[in-house]
Amino acid sequence: MSEEPNNIVPCGYRFAACYAGIRKKQADDLTLIVSDTPAAAAAVFTTNTVRAAPVTVSGEHLRKSRGVCHAIVANAGNANCATPTMNKVARATARAAGKLLGARREQVLLASTGVIGEPLDQKRITQALPVLLERLAPENFAASARSIMTTDTFAKTAYASVETPQGIVRLAGMAKGAGMIHPRMATMLSFLFTDAAIGHRPLQKLLGSAVRNSFNRISVDGDTSTNDTVYLLANGASGVRLRRKDLRAFENALEEIAQQLAVAIVRDGEGARRLLTIEVDGASNDGDAQRIARAIANSPLVKTALAGADPNWGRILSSAGASGANFDPDKVDIFINGSRVCRRGVRADFNEPEVQASMEKTESALLFRIRGWGKGGAKFWTCDLTEEYIRINAEYRT
Amino acid sequence: MSEEPNNIVPCGYRFAACYAGIRKKQADDLTLIVSDTPAAAAAVFTTNTVRAAPVTVSGEHLRKSRGVCHAIVANAGNANCATPTMNKVARATARAAGKLLGARREQVLLASTGVIGEPLDQKRITQALPVLLERLAPENFAASARSIMTTDTFAKTAYASVETPQGIVRLAGMAKGAGMIHPRMATMLSFLFTDAAIGHRPLQKLLGSAVRNSFNRISVDGDTSTNDTVYLLANGASGVRLRRKDLRAFENALEEIAQQLAVAIVRDGEGARRLLTIEVDGASNDGDAQRIARAIANSPLVKTALAGADPNWGRILSSAGASGANFDPDKVDIFINGSRVCRRGVRADFNEPEVQASMEKTESALLFRIRGWGKGGAKFWTCDLTEEYIRINAEYRT
Repeated sequence: MSEEPNNIVPCGYRFAACYAGIRKKQADDLTLIVSDTPAAAAAVFTTNTVRAAPVTVSGEHLRKSRGVCHAIVANAGNANCATPTMNKVARATARAAGKLLGARREQVLLASTGVIGEPLDQKRITQALPVLLERLAPENFAASARSIMTTDTFAKTAYASVETPQGIVRLAGMAKGAGMIHPRMATMLSFLFTDAAIGHRPLQKLLGSAVRNSFNRISVDGDTSTNDTVYLLANGASGVRLRRKDLRAFENALEEIAQQLAVAIVRDGEGARRLLTIEVDGASNDGDAQRIARAIANSPLVKTALAGADPNWGRILSSAGASGANFDPDKVDIFINGSRVCRRGVRADFNEPEVQASMEKTESALLFRIRGWGKGGAKFWTCDLTEEYIRINAEYRT
Repeated sequence: MSEEPNNIVPCGYRFAACYAGIRKKQADDLTLIVSDTPAAAAAVFTTNTVRAAPVTVSGEHLRKSRGVCHAIVANAGNANCATPTMNKVARATARAAGKLLGARREQVLLASTGVIGEPLDQKRITQALPVLLERLAPENFAASARSIMTTDTFAKTAYASVETPQGIVRLAGMAKGAGMIHPRMATMLSFLFTDAAIGHRPLQKLLGSAVRNSFNRISVDGDTSTNDTVYLLANGASGVRLRRKDLRAFENALEEIAQQLAVAIVRDGEGARRLLTIEVDGASNDGDAQRIARAIANSPLVKTALAGADPNWGRILSSAGASGANFDPDKVDIFINGSRVCRRGVRADFNEPEVQASMEKTESALLFRIRGWGKGGAKFWTCDLTEEYIRINAEYRT
């Protein structure tokens, strides 16, 4: 990545947001995102059996358009899921946006987040779309990111650029976050954009790989909401078509912004005050390393220990042991913020007050190393579990 | 089961408890349980890869003794796990108890619960054992149950009896509870006793089945602590050897007390104020029904909704959708306390304030029914997730 100012939005995209009255709180809840020329599009959707209409309809659209997207319409405040009218509302939204933009409806992609099971009034969207059309501008990128927030406390954006012999291409992304114990039911949305020229098929491959190493390392996959969606658009407006040898740098930049957004989601987890980066090293294989990292990341006892700045390595070892991964506990070393707290499966000689103090900072690092066992590695991010999480989720609808 | 007074301990067992100084709080933390004659014994242990010494040593003992047990020694305050001395301490405990009782050491079974990774001082146990020997009495059953408590707020006991043509046999059980999001790392212990005469092998089969339908329905299995242990002893002191046709009644009584104890564990979950019984009906098969029930039971969003008395059926449907079970969301009805809140996958017409009020009681019932799909059923128990849970677990060691 270059040393350029890092908040430049890729060429050829315009954004608009407004309050359409979908949520009670008077804050923007609808966004229209347009690529000036049809863009190649890739998507990763929830694996939940229960899927919201914006997910199923957008999936259809991508198949029909063969991976071409002209616009994204996204709303917060209502998931448009599990209601008798959800498909009708999603189709009407895409039809209205396509008509306004002079694009085919299957070139419109959708995303929704919010409460499940409450009907979404399609008029609120269709009546607001002309207003949004008027407001479209590249500089509304951040406003667009703000409009998809639900319990997020800050908007999540990330930027990158890649220099190639043919010129610079840019990437930018926005995301909204999720409740953080298991983010399965608090929808995660992310929209990524580049002005590089890339075909639909390589784009889908790039996105799949970036998602695996970012959003799926905050334990989203498998445990996903009804609405989880990641889109990646490539409109070629930079005039740069990536060559095979430039792809690696692009892939790194894409993974970098996806990880930045994923980490921002964890950092802004409901009620979270502390971020924990978990690295597993020396597992039988990468799959087992992921199992261990995920088990530690999901463990409410590890997450509450982090909230209490408690270097409780016993809980860490035990959650790894319950992960289903195969390893010998006697070969495990655990480091917290660089201090070895567990050596060969038993307590190491460490300065407990010092490690406790280090855990009171907003970021901590955990290394789970199995010595002389295997070569599997994985990285995960999680946050602490606080009383505030309970307050947010027990009072979500009241 | 008979109409007899239901708090009679089976014949031929004696109990004692004392404070041995293992935990800081001055409350009994050590118990000795003796069967006057060697009893047939069955056990179910944690499936965690990381296993505490009392688990591995007791497993060895059961193999060496071919399922015969004379005594159980159990302590709270220290898990005797993940320390260099854990095996030595466990073996010394069994040796000392065997010597005192004139029994072979492999006829002594062990159980520990408490903090992981802190050395357990074996002298505290070996010095207290003679005191316990003096105190042994059938009426100390409840004192024994109290001594294994950790964050439990009440002792958990259950009793049953079965009338057979040859006479009455009795059953009794005690248990200690667990943190309740996933109880994997907060140890669950249960000791069950009967004065029926049953061989080791049928006893093991009976216990396996009872555990599957009780302790494993509060989501313990798979996600277990390093120390989870259930023992069942049958000493034959009633003089009644169960015949094949009496076995069914005995099996029902055993499952009944195991379920009573399991439900008591949920009811006393850390910070829990509300119990939720989950029934799944009409899944593809029993395995899928269990997957759905477990996913709902484990969902922090469902558990926080229960804490807020919020009939948030969208969260229930979505957690079921993420369970990995195969079903058509359009065929799902969800009932809360008898009111249908979701019909064919969408919101049912129900009186929300009324259902909310019903959820404010200490017990609620959830029925997840898939219509015209399959015949799989499952029952699970869970509790609400409250701010108190966080307080308990963030401050556990401080």
